[in-house]
Amino acid sequence: MSKTEIDTLVEQLAKLPALGPRSARRAVLFLLKKKETHMTSLIRALTEVAEKVQPCPLCGNMDTVSPCSICSDLKRDKSQICVVQDVSDLWALERSQAFKGLYHVLGGVLSALDGIGPDELNIHSLLGKVQNGEVKEVIIALPATVDGQTTAHYLAEILENENVIVSGLSHGVPVGGELDYLDDGTLQTAFKTRRGI
Amino acid sequence: MSKTEIDTLVEQLAKLPALGPRSARRAVLFLLKKKETHMTSLIRALTEVAEKVQPCPLCGNMDTVSPCSICSDLKRDKSQICVVQDVSDLWALERSQAFKGLYHVLGGVLSALDGIGPDELNIHSLLGKVQNGEVKEVIIALPATVDGQTTAHYLAEILENENVIVSGLSHGVPVGGELDYLDDGTLQTAFKTRRGI
Repeated sequence: MSKTEIDTLVEQLAKLPALGPRSARRAVLFLLKKKETHMTSLIRALTEVAEKVQPCPLCGNMDTVSPCSICSDLKRDKSQICVVQDVSDLWALERSQAFKGLYHVLGGVLSALDGIGPDELNIHSLLGKVQNGEVKEVIIALPATVDGQTTAHYLAEILENENVIVSGLSHGVPVGGELDYLDDGTLQTAFKTRRGI
Repeated sequence: MSKTEIDTLVEQLAKLPALGPRSARRAVLFLLKKKETHMTSLIRALTEVAEKVQPCPLCGNMDTVSPCSICSDLKRDKSQICVVQDVSDLWALERSQAFKGLYHVLGGVLSALDGIGPDELNIHSLLGKVQNGEVKEVIIALPATVDGQTTAHYLAEILENENVIVSGLSHGVPVGGELDYLDDGTLQTAFKTRRGI
């Protein structure tokens, strides 16, 4: 069987985070069956993104304009910077419409196990932004994991002597969350930080 | 946010069978981070497949040559035709190297619920192949579902008056399968059709 082109495509698709070889093969067959509609438009969409999208030099967001549409939006509050681990977290916060300031993508969190130290992350440029004077608050929105919280404390320490408020996201019961599915740590925190209704 | 190009790509990827909007977004970020290596080669692989691969006019397989490499392979046994539901089943059988004859892709199975009757499937051309005379055995390798087995019986009835042996895959315990994970029907069948060791 000289199925090289199909095999290559299966291999390429199987590299995507959510796909394995088997689901990649199913995806290829799906695309082959709908060549005119789905395959052509997928190729077009991929080419457009590959050509136009690039990381924002200011915050690290991915966008078709540079600086990105958030950094260049005059309506956003430049006195607040929200520090996130990755672009996906930035997009999640944007979907929630919870925040109207600017972002700063770290590109990861500190991890002794993976050999990621401060120099591997965009920490230096964050300090630069803060020292520029316009920033009043840095909101650290890193994951509630050990590595994430270690990184949050590290950042808080670095920013201690700068003239900014450093804050973090609150912990508690997720909105719409069932109590008996939650872990002990979350329930304990939600109890400790309980509030009047 | 004018994130139209990225949104379009996420939508296109989310149409693939194994991906939802969330995993499609992760896939897009993965591709953006590895633009030079992964994204470019994925676009190239997709374009190659879109340009070169087409269904085989004889068996329905997807291949870069027409007729497909199986139908045009002189070493394959033209006296045996294996009927499968879909191209993915054909590929699975080819990977198993269990069969050295030719294939016939039905394109589905009969389903009253989905409104799929005999005219929606490639049944007519199967009959044509059998009546041409060279075929000695038709092996029906359809799924062991109600619809699959209904279709198998329908095909067996149609082929009854032709001069061919009609056979089906055997049922039983999958090789390497744990007994306590198997359904009752499979265990009952495996018991009824037990064999000497």
